[in-house]
Amino acid sequence: MLKWRVPAIRRLLNLKDRMHSTEQQLAELSRGAEEILPDGGLKAKLGKNRPLVIKAGFDPTAPDLHIGHTVLINKMRQFQEFGHEVVFLIGDFTGMIGDPSGKNATRPPLSAEEIEANAATYEAQVFKILDKDRTRVEFNSRWMSELGSAGMIRLAARHTVARMLERDDFSKRYAGGQPISIHEFLYPLVQGYDSVALEADVELGGTDQKFNLLVGRQLQQDYGQDPQLVMTMPLLEGLDGVQKMSKSLDNYVGITDAPEDMFGKLMSISDELMWRYFELLSFRGLDEIAGLKRSVDEGMNPRDAKFELAREMVARFHDTAAAERAQQAFVGQFQKGGMPDEIPEFTLDAKDGALGVAYVLKGAGLVSSTSEAFRMIKQGAVRIDGERIEDRGLEIKAGSTHVFQVGRRRYARATVE
Amino acid sequence: MLKWRVPAIRRLLNLKDRMHSTEQQLAELSRGAEEILPDGGLKAKLGKNRPLVIKAGFDPTAPDLHIGHTVLINKMRQFQEFGHEVVFLIGDFTGMIGDPSGKNATRPPLSAEEIEANAATYEAQVFKILDKDRTRVEFNSRWMSELGSAGMIRLAARHTVARMLERDDFSKRYAGGQPISIHEFLYPLVQGYDSVALEADVELGGTDQKFNLLVGRQLQQDYGQDPQLVMTMPLLEGLDGVQKMSKSLDNYVGITDAPEDMFGKLMSISDELMWRYFELLSFRGLDEIAGLKRSVDEGMNPRDAKFELAREMVARFHDTAAAERAQQAFVGQFQKGGMPDEIPEFTLDAKDGALGVAYVLKGAGLVSSTSEAFRMIKQGAVRIDGERIEDRGLEIKAGSTHVFQVGRRRYARATVE
Repeated sequence: MLKWRVPAIRRLLNLKDRMHSTEQQLAELSRGAEEILPDGGLKAKLGKNRPLVIKAGFDPTAPDLHIGHTVLINKMRQFQEFGHEVVFLIGDFTGMIGDPSGKNATRPPLSAEEIEANAATYEAQVFKILDKDRTRVEFNSRWMSELGSAGMIRLAARHTVARMLERDDFSKRYAGGQPISIHEFLYPLVQGYDSVALEADVELGGTDQKFNLLVGRQLQQDYGQDPQLVMTMPLLEGLDGVQKMSKSLDNYVGITDAPEDMFGKLMSISDELMWRYFELLSFRGLDEIAGLKRSVDEGMNPRDAKFELAREMVARFHDTAAAERAQQAFVGQFQKGGMPDEIPEFTLDAKDGALGVAYVLKGAGLVSSTSEAFRMIKQGAVRIDGERIEDRGLEIKAGSTHVFQVGRRRYARATVE
Repeated sequence: MLKWRVPAIRRLLNLKDRMHSTEQQLAELSRGAEEILPDGGLKAKLGKNRPLVIKAGFDPTAPDLHIGHTVLINKMRQFQEFGHEVVFLIGDFTGMIGDPSGKNATRPPLSAEEIEANAATYEAQVFKILDKDRTRVEFNSRWMSELGSAGMIRLAARHTVARMLERDDFSKRYAGGQPISIHEFLYPLVQGYDSVALEADVELGGTDQKFNLLVGRQLQQDYGQDPQLVMTMPLLEGLDGVQKMSKSLDNYVGITDAPEDMFGKLMSISDELMWRYFELLSFRGLDEIAGLKRSVDEGMNPRDAKFELAREMVARFHDTAAAERAQQAFVGQFQKGGMPDEIPEFTLDAKDGALGVAYVLKGAGLVSSTSEAFRMIKQGAVRIDGERIEDRGLEIKAGSTHVFQVGRRRYARATVE
């Protein structure tokens, strides 16, 4: 079994700076991306043969990341490892404004102190992935405050109302008679102007950012710059493999989760989702992942491939020793019988959007009756995605998939619909 | 014949400060206004029993005013004469920005020096009407520059896209696929914020300004102020009595026109238009104008009423002596026969948007042939609106009405359509 350590990855990837051709960079940097605009633009940018400026912007709201959020940060790391200049841009300018229309209670204006504290929390988390010494942290208030009110008007002159209304959410709200405050038209321009100020070569963002990233391209052209490449990264599927990963759906792995929880949750995913996670979360090269996949096709237990993934992730957010311990604990938990290679799958109908856990256990054939289910929960013998549950009244939400376990040997993967 | 001098008007109007009740102010201040919003608002404002802050904004582009522009300034003067505080607001902030989209070549950004020079030119002209000592001149850059880029965003949050698109010209352009730059949505907000900064009680503007003036009301409410009264003044009809007064239609009286030209042009207007001009241009009280009208109804020659108007205007922009001389010259010109009380009216069809002056003279029966017309022009015997013409190739534009004169006795008022 290959031992995988973060420092080792670093050395290997630093080596890549010197060894990899444009073609090899192209394949790795395109990996997992939802969309890269314009077509052929990445090759042209790489052809400049100088470190590119890679921009990614983050809201300065209190961050508490799950591994879904790291897909973008991993992409930043890739660019970094290929020798490019990564800018971790904190949007403190708009953060200090908050939602001035007062309609969005979740966006109160932040003080300079709050923004500084949030930025520090952010950095502590993202520097588990990015190389701190090679990351340029910027705050956009530096150039936005300087712009002044007249500069803001000049900036607003660079875009038309009609083109702004083409943005999906704006056009829907406008058509539906939902109010759009005029300042909401200014925010994409602020984000675009950040690209001008940074002379960004590439901007990374979620798929929902595509419009704003393209505004950056247009503004750079207006300012006589070679417009940035736009690369959108997908939203990661949650542990159920169906819904997007999110805290409210409880299908996530938090990057501050305990090693055993993180390991157990990752072991609960389907084999198909495992390859998706390898693509978007692993720092292994594409060739190495292809090799692993070949091994599985040729008879290797997919569980062992999943061990690799889970161990890499725990090592990243904790350390290698914690990863080893988590694996041992996981294996120990199943020592008498072990986790089956094939887990039977069930699909159950929800009532009113959810189904009580006892009914799920009964429906998946893990218990013979709901009263047996209640007894097993009381005894601490029931786990969901590796985590012991104690609440017999727990409701499983419709649209979610989890691995349910009763005692040591009974497993089922059940989807509540 | 009543002798009318500016100092005399001043004394009389200053007297009004003390003598006139709210009811009397109401009648004079509403005089000629196109719209006053909200209903009953003027009475409420006057009921505050303190000097009101009256705001009127002007672009700092090089001003070269005609009497049509003075309708608004006359209204400012009225408020001033009733003891209110008139703010002559120069929009230097937006002037310094110009048209940042670069689409409007007629709005280049102005330098601080140009704005200062234009403001001085403006003042030299408007202080022929306003009392300089009682006029507060303001430049909106004072508060707009201070606002900063963040303040501009907060301001933009005060209005919605949908409400802005309700403005007539915006909705037409949007529906017609004509681009609207986003900064155009900011200008009404800047204008509205000026009202907040000034704590304006009343804002005066042309009818085309109604939407922007109402934005000011809304912003003042948002900022916890008693919202301003909105008063729009009509665009003055030109000498033809049909089209709006404008330089391009050549139906205007410039406020720097020579006394004789000004006098002659005003004497060429129809009797109906004369009363309109009395309402909007004269500083005489409504009761006095009503008296004059009664006299005409009872047999007074309307020409004599027109003399009063023409003399008042020349006295205002030159002086009383110049007004007397202009009247004498005008009368002298018609001493053998004089200007007829009734001038025959003709309507002629234009070819390709205009008609040669010789054809107009022939069509109006003033000459028997175009060759006679050419001869009379060469002899200096042809006048249009009292001005001698020398160019036999002169084209009279479609949509204009002028008084044509050949020799001393032949007159016609001809409209080219």
